Amino acid sequence: MKLYGAPMPAPNPRRVRIFLAEKGIALEETPVDLMSRAHKSPEHLARNALGQVPTLELDDGTTISETVSICRYFEALHPTPPLFGSSPVEQALTDMWIRRTEFVLMQPVGMYWRHAHPRTARLLKQYTDFGHSNVERYGEAQAWFDRQLADRPFLAGETYSMADICALSTVDFATWIGLPLDPKHTHLAAWHARVTARPSAAA
Amino acid sequence: MKLYGAPMPAPNPRRVRIFLAEKGIALEETPVDLMSRAHKSPEHLARNALGQVPTLELDDGTTISETVSICRYFEALHPTPPLFGSSPVEQALTDMWIRRTEFVLMQPVGMYWRHAHPRTARLLKQYTDFGHSNVERYGEAQAWFDRQLADRPFLAGETYSMADICALSTVDFATWIGLPLDPKHTHLAAWHARVTARPSAAA
Repeated sequence: MKLYGAPMPAPNPRRVRIFLAEKGIALEETPVDLMSRAHKSPEHLARNALGQVPTLELDDGTTISETVSICRYFEALHPTPPLFGSSPVEQALTDMWIRRTEFVLMQPVGMYWRHAHPRTARLLKQYTDFGHSNVERYGEAQAWFDRQLADRPFLAGETYSMADICALSTVDFATWIGLPLDPKHTHLAAWHARVTARPSAAA
Repeated sequence: MKLYGAPMPAPNPRRVRIFLAEKGIALEETPVDLMSRAHKSPEHLARNALGQVPTLELDDGTTISETVSICRYFEALHPTPPLFGSSPVEQALTDMWIRRTEFVLMQPVGMYWRHAHPRTARLLKQYTDFGHSNVERYGEAQAWFDRQLADRPFLAGETYSMADICALSTVDFATWIGLPLDPKHTHLAAWHARVTARPSAAA
């Protein structure tokens, strides 16, 4: 199989790399050059009709896109250690925290990036008033996640999971585009230090 | 267990109802009155800290929120018929289509609803220029889904899945808020007729 991705700071390919590092799976990434827009080339669009990375190409030619879906596929092939939960309840709660990370934490970061950041201004029609409003929303999201993390080490409970991988890469990408974590959120800061200390975070 | 939800046109509770109907699981919904904002009451916030429906409360008091996560829980307890795919590849591709439905099709509908629709204007600070821009994005999303559906009956392939449930409720909610399907997208229209003809669509 072949994993198409891109280096830091692209947050989605990094998620897959962290996931593989946690699983102990060695799989080299085939880089797709985002700067020259190779992800929008006919060759890559044939693999992923949305022109995004990461995409996983299996030996029979089947292509799986979407970060979390690719990781689910590896989870099914390599169940240990579980990163999507073990029991049905754990699996549901891990999925819930992946989704909350995406809808609550990641969406304002993505909308700020698309609609307010100078780097995307050349590529997209921006609605900058809306874009900048997401700074406040991301602040609220941080506060909400901080409260949720008051009583446990990881998002889905006692165990590190895919939800932590999604949140870590979101927070680090946000810092890179100028939206750092507010240090007053001490539970969130402690969580960030905890997940960053894992060797996988270097991926 | 207790399933907290809300009647039509709320799209997320409907997804769970359609899923349960497809599974043949009888579980009465406990309504949370959105008009009186009962979903933001301390009682409901204790079940779901985001103040949303649906939420599933298990007999031991554990609460699972997020539509797709709730459905995954039922899938684990009642695997037949599979609505999240059977093999690892099918499961990954079904998950991919759920995510594409949410990011590509649902996001512009949700952003139009939040930022341009008169019904939400009283409740939220709106960025109406941005909100209205999502009409065009939803049109592009319809065109993209139409092309994807040219060669198969359902989003994830030959079999009806959770991805179809997510897309059906998105499209029907969009119609309700004034964003109908464009009939020129004939593959999408045929898909919509196909999934609407299933008895579960009445849920």
